[in-house]
Amino acid sequence: MDDPLKISVRLRCGGEFAMGPGKASVLEGIERHGSISAAGRALGISYRRTWLLVDTLNRCWAEPLVQTARGGGGGGGTRLTPTGHEVLALYRALEARAAAAAAGGDYARLVALLRAEPLSPTDSAPD
Amino acid sequence: MDDPLKISVRLRCGGEFAMGPGKASVLEGIERHGSISAAGRALGISYRRTWLLVDTLNRCWAEPLVQTARGGGGGGGTRLTPTGHEVLALYRALEARAAAAAAGGDYARLVALLRAEPLSPTDSAPD
Repeated sequence: MDDPLKISVRLRCGGEFAMGPGKASVLEGIERHGSISAAGRALGISYRRTWLLVDTLNRCWAEPLVQTARGGGGGGGTRLTPTGHEVLALYRALEARAAAAAAGGDYARLVALLRAEPLSPTDSAPD
Repeated sequence: MDDPLKISVRLRCGGEFAMGPGKASVLEGIERHGSISAAGRALGISYRRTWLLVDTLNRCWAEPLVQTARGGGGGGGTRLTPTGHEVLALYRALEARAAAAAAGGDYARLVALLRAEPLSPTDSAPD
């Protein structure tokens, strides 16, 4: 079967999330495409939603992670700041450490107890 | 600041989740209270929702994790099976391994870059 393990790592900043799987993907999209709208399109999320994720990122870290050059032709010029690159790399490394540790220990025993597919739902669910 | 790290570990079984934070809490509630309804009350979730989580648990593993004694007086008698105890313990150990590994490496550097509280939202969010 496919690896059944799914780990989601988030970092809180007060009542918001400063980083998580979606925000990391947005940062990677901006790194690759050089614009917020292109990053959103590549991820299948609206411009407004993408912009709000970037705004949260920029408000939760000691320095902005994304820098947008306004004006000028072509609309490009959005990119990660040095802090943006650093936070993204540190987050991806943290995720990888967590996943590697999770897959150690008695993980094989847990997977051995898991079905590849669930049995059918019991049809006597109470109302 | 409080530890900002939040790790969520889930295990897939086909298109469903065989285990995750909510299901682990339900198993612990049943272990503690000896009934599905009391476990649900302690967690603030409905009986139906709790029952459905138990049904998913029982369909996703090689053997049922929860055993309900029907009939008899008092309505008690719901408990974890030996497999239920084992899966719960293995899952909690997996979570602990992942969290310990995440908090190693360059985690302190990442936290040093994080604000304790976000700045105020930017008020020029696009429509």
